Amino acid sequence: MGVVVNLEERADRKGDLGQLATLTADDLRDVNDLIVRAMDSPVALIPQLAGHIVAAGGKRLRPMLTLASARMCGYEGNRHKGLSACVEFIHTATLLHDDVVDESELRRGLASANAVWGNQASVLVGDFLFSRAFELMVADGSLTILEVLSHASKVIAEGEVMQLTTSNDTSTGETAYLEVIRAKTAQLFSAACRIGAVVADRPKVEEDALETFGMNLGIAFQLIDDVLDFSAKQANLGKTVGDDFREGKITLPIILAFRRGDDDERVFWRRTLEDLDQGGGDLDRAIGLLEKHGALDDTVERARHYGAIARDAMGIFDDSPHKQALVDVIDFCIERAY
Amino acid sequence: MGVVVNLEERADRKGDLGQLATLTADDLRDVNDLIVRAMDSPVALIPQLAGHIVAAGGKRLRPMLTLASARMCGYEGNRHKGLSACVEFIHTATLLHDDVVDESELRRGLASANAVWGNQASVLVGDFLFSRAFELMVADGSLTILEVLSHASKVIAEGEVMQLTTSNDTSTGETAYLEVIRAKTAQLFSAACRIGAVVADRPKVEEDALETFGMNLGIAFQLIDDVLDFSAKQANLGKTVGDDFREGKITLPIILAFRRGDDDERVFWRRTLEDLDQGGGDLDRAIGLLEKHGALDDTVERARHYGAIARDAMGIFDDSPHKQALVDVIDFCIERAY
Repeated sequence: MGVVVNLEERADRKGDLGQLATLTADDLRDVNDLIVRAMDSPVALIPQLAGHIVAAGGKRLRPMLTLASARMCGYEGNRHKGLSACVEFIHTATLLHDDVVDESELRRGLASANAVWGNQASVLVGDFLFSRAFELMVADGSLTILEVLSHASKVIAEGEVMQLTTSNDTSTGETAYLEVIRAKTAQLFSAACRIGAVVADRPKVEEDALETFGMNLGIAFQLIDDVLDFSAKQANLGKTVGDDFREGKITLPIILAFRRGDDDERVFWRRTLEDLDQGGGDLDRAIGLLEKHGALDDTVERARHYGAIARDAMGIFDDSPHKQALVDVIDFCIERAY
Repeated sequence: MGVVVNLEERADRKGDLGQLATLTADDLRDVNDLIVRAMDSPVALIPQLAGHIVAAGGKRLRPMLTLASARMCGYEGNRHKGLSACVEFIHTATLLHDDVVDESELRRGLASANAVWGNQASVLVGDFLFSRAFELMVADGSLTILEVLSHASKVIAEGEVMQLTTSNDTSTGETAYLEVIRAKTAQLFSAACRIGAVVADRPKVEEDALETFGMNLGIAFQLIDDVLDFSAKQANLGKTVGDDFREGKITLPIILAFRRGDDDERVFWRRTLEDLDQGGGDLDRAIGLLEKHGALDDTVERARHYGAIARDAMGIFDDSPHKQALVDVIDFCIERAY
């Protein structure tokens, strides 16, 4: 799996969240405290289940984007912390509902919440976190931010439904796929960045620039995520390699390989992804076909394209450590292999 | 089943939504148009699925409460229509998620959305409607109303989780049960009424009175719903009799019969509701025990108590057709048998 090695080498060269993590560390500690307080409830199962997924924690990339965007825009108050928590709650709620939807058994290397507590609790605690996010936004009091995040939430749900309807359909094209990941992933990245400018009361052109940055960063992030599903590095991420394949999810690597393949290969893709008729060796054959057609490498190339747009969007901001840290996230997203 | 006949007779005497439906008919037509427009999406499955549940429609009781409360408070604008649509969207979203949670196959006499389109789509379209509700509220622009409805949404989710944890536990007491229905059902009734006063810019004492009215009306409504689950009238409602029983849901009729029963009966309740070990004849025996202990009639009596509180809360408002129509809903809720 050549691409994996390539990714590994790139990861060694650059691409980590180092500066972003360092610059936002103090703020993020407060955000984490806020998160723990805000997910509390007299109904004990709620903090238990929410704690499981929030504590499993991931990288807190989205809240970091809000924190750093606000600071880059010169914001010196504290509202960006609560808003970061809102962003993370919306993200966590969609993860909980996703896991129900995907019937995933692992999330970030731990048993997923639905595997432990059942689908019912996951759906309802997701609803709780989502509502809590809106309560926090209302307490913050900015209608503009409420607008950005309620719109993002709507678009995310649309994206997830779109994904459901393109799932298991090998005729899905690159455009339709991009529309899905724009909605289900990139929209929240974009909103997380935009509200940094809103809270700092910056002109619309800066809001728009941060939105473009976040949107294209999010697309790149998801493209690489889709590549990683076919890569041995997944084991390190605590995910199962081939999850998307087993579910018949049509991601860009598949789309490219399908279009570049011959009739015999298309029969294979249809059997495994549309009929979900899969046996031992099929995942290996899929990975082999992806490599044969350069589908993984070319998906990484597509990601670089969106990364370049994200980088240029940041051009209007003066140089600063926060700006540099945000721009470095592009490399992290594209070249992460850990 | 004596209680059923009683309910039927009462229904013939009084108790219908007639005046409320008449007084709100024009506004409700606009609300229905708004609902259809607001649930539109380029993702075709969303209006399809949302249309299925919104069109199945139910009584539109909650939006009517908002419309009538606002008019009773002298409101003459149009904002109450959009806010009614928000209330209905929140309600519909919770229904969609409930059906996933309950694994219900029928909803208002039609196949439930999850039975037709699957759990995944139901969860995600619920999320869409929920986000859409917040978008509409943001467009309306009142932070107070956003606060009332985001708080209600949070409490509803808490109530549903609470219900999940008391489900199948015959030691659940009346207090714990009331806490659940207050949260999962009555809170939205209460919010629907309260925002009528908010939109009309009435003093806090009137907001509070409408909240108390809605809360107690909602409790009465749910108590009767729980009675109806064991009543032949359910067939007319298009629901399956004994749904709650089959799921092991602990409702007030069960709580009363369990506490009033002997050891032998408690063994029966534990087997059927905790172990969910049910066979032919068990539902009939359950209904027999509920009747033997007067548990259905006494649940109706409890509902009357909350209805009385709701009625008195309305005492501070001047007499008007809208006020009368709202007060009449209490009788509808308690004595509905259609």
